[in-house]
Amino acid sequence: MDRFIVHKTEGKARRGTFRTVHGDIQTPVFMNVGTCAAVKGGVSTMDLKEIGCQVELSNTYHLHVRPGDELIKKMGGLHRFFNWDRPVLTDSGGFQVFSLAKLRKIREEGVYFYSHVDGKPIFMGPEQSMQIQSRLGSTIAMAFDECVANPAPRDYVQASVERTSRWLLRCKDELRLLNSFPHTVNREQLLFGINQGGTFDDIRIAHMKEIAGYGLDGYAIGGLAVGEETAEMYRVIDAVEPYMPSDKPRYLMGVGTPVNILESVYRGIDFFDCVMPSRNARHGNMFTWSGKVNLKNECYFDDPRPIEEGCLCPACRHYSRSYIRHLLKAKEMLGMRLCVLHNLYFYNKLTERIRAELDKGTFTSFYKEYREILDVHCNGYEKSEL
Amino acid sequence: MDRFIVHKTEGKARRGTFRTVHGDIQTPVFMNVGTCAAVKGGVSTMDLKEIGCQVELSNTYHLHVRPGDELIKKMGGLHRFFNWDRPVLTDSGGFQVFSLAKLRKIREEGVYFYSHVDGKPIFMGPEQSMQIQSRLGSTIAMAFDECVANPAPRDYVQASVERTSRWLLRCKDELRLLNSFPHTVNREQLLFGINQGGTFDDIRIAHMKEIAGYGLDGYAIGGLAVGEETAEMYRVIDAVEPYMPSDKPRYLMGVGTPVNILESVYRGIDFFDCVMPSRNARHGNMFTWSGKVNLKNECYFDDPRPIEEGCLCPACRHYSRSYIRHLLKAKEMLGMRLCVLHNLYFYNKLTERIRAELDKGTFTSFYKEYREILDVHCNGYEKSEL
Repeated sequence: MDRFIVHKTEGKARRGTFRTVHGDIQTPVFMNVGTCAAVKGGVSTMDLKEIGCQVELSNTYHLHVRPGDELIKKMGGLHRFFNWDRPVLTDSGGFQVFSLAKLRKIREEGVYFYSHVDGKPIFMGPEQSMQIQSRLGSTIAMAFDECVANPAPRDYVQASVERTSRWLLRCKDELRLLNSFPHTVNREQLLFGINQGGTFDDIRIAHMKEIAGYGLDGYAIGGLAVGEETAEMYRVIDAVEPYMPSDKPRYLMGVGTPVNILESVYRGIDFFDCVMPSRNARHGNMFTWSGKVNLKNECYFDDPRPIEEGCLCPACRHYSRSYIRHLLKAKEMLGMRLCVLHNLYFYNKLTERIRAELDKGTFTSFYKEYREILDVHCNGYEKSEL
Repeated sequence: MDRFIVHKTEGKARRGTFRTVHGDIQTPVFMNVGTCAAVKGGVSTMDLKEIGCQVELSNTYHLHVRPGDELIKKMGGLHRFFNWDRPVLTDSGGFQVFSLAKLRKIREEGVYFYSHVDGKPIFMGPEQSMQIQSRLGSTIAMAFDECVANPAPRDYVQASVERTSRWLLRCKDELRLLNSFPHTVNREQLLFGINQGGTFDDIRIAHMKEIAGYGLDGYAIGGLAVGEETAEMYRVIDAVEPYMPSDKPRYLMGVGTPVNILESVYRGIDFFDCVMPSRNARHGNMFTWSGKVNLKNECYFDDPRPIEEGCLCPACRHYSRSYIRHLLKAKEMLGMRLCVLHNLYFYNKLTERIRAELDKGTFTSFYKEYREILDVHCNGYEKSEL
């Protein structure tokens, strides 16, 4: 049985199914980010089911620091800890180590740093990252890599990518070992490798060619949307994509706006995740099929319409722009919750719609129409969510 | 048709039904407090239905300041604004004027003060309070009164109560006028009067005797749980209760702990409201049928049980103490939301259980057993919620 089945392609865009021990994932898919085992804005796993989430993404570094992966293993793994029976992807912690941790020192064996919560010294290398993710028992583990901020000097990027390749083999070996133990939470845990190389196409391609031979369960493009121009991001995807195994899912990490997702599906990407829907919701920036709406604007003061007419999310089915705007202005938690629910629902619907268009063979015309309509600007990340 | 039907009594405790234009209220009842047209902790009116809330309570002063009662009237009244088809009680704003407003001046015509949000000067008297509540279109409006903090000098209390009586007649006249206008949101809006008198039994009794003759839709005891000892509160209820019309519902404002509610039902009270369930939830203090549980305690770190075994609230049906404790520690909004849902569910269940015991004629034995079990301490209010 193939783990990943590509049912249909249209240009480079792919319509697939990824089979996991926690159920099938229909791709293209947007994964909903629950940093500390909960989506920001008071959103529970019950809510995630209601808004059509297929895959929850949790952060290895955050959970290692608090409440600790030992506790989560003791509670039966992440799925039992937060009561979720669908797939979970855990990142490797690498991205947070490089964006949040203090005074880090990178060595061949791994990274020495201090916790951003309590300042305690922590060491994390490929083996540690795999051990933590194994204790969390996620469906898909991500390889431990170095995420380099763009732009970076070529020499640094070259050396970093070579180390990331060595780390990847260590991740693979460690996970194979962990999956062989009888008390491992999820003995069918999968591993995705991560392509790096900054904005240097040739380094990216050489790295991708190399790791493609490692026979992993999926391949991610990391280190994009970390400072470079959007056009540069698309150029890198276009350069690397031909070297990604066509029979494995492809994951563009931490991206992006609705139009980023559309453009990347068009370029052959299958998996996405981003904190943008929840981060934007907190500031009243709502995603709709006709572009962004900022609910804090005065013009919505007495607007009786839902955030988006026809939308079936829990916010739009029950409440008006006027009411939700009032909640945001009064700093009532419910305002943020309703906005997050709408935005995540929108992202889940967007990928559902993309899948339907691929199924019908009409993705290209959908893409051409909506790349204009959905073109809203990405304003970067909030540090607290990385 | 009688508006209030007392089906059964057991000692002084009463099992009743209060009929309103927004549906029947089964009493004794606990009203769930949504200060700014939303319960703190990200709880929506959809959630309130799920946790068995019969009556939502909104704050006139808060809504007048933000988003404004004119807006809410324009949006069709509170019921349409926050999408709730069951009864709503609005307080008069009096309590907030006396607890939150800056530099207030009390005159015969009403109170001059400054908004706690933007410092704007506001005047509120009986007519203004009724006009605001009429625009909100609540099911039950509360009369505008002065709430005196305990202890207070006898002379002050006596003069204040006399003014409160004069204000009550003005409230009644104003509401009758407002209910006669064709464009009034809820032309069947009801009015409850409020008994005051601090901890002076004789002043309380004289005041109650007087307002009992005003023929209002219900009678509240205000100005308790504002600084006096619990024993003193019960003594005042015992003193005043015989003079409250037996064919009208009786509402003990802003009270209290589960045991306060039990003791007050035992003394003949029908309606309750309190911010305690949500306030306590924010600090991890959970109410259960065997007393209080503080989820932040270390002992719940790896506790796989729900907050309360057998509880059917949305938190207990899906999540463990360990998970919710993690959320509270990580300051994830979801933690607070789950805790508020549990505590409100507990309060709603508590009054449901009291009604069931009254129906069966077993309230007295229930009271004797649970007055010990439920005896947890009230730690006062958080100012932000008053």
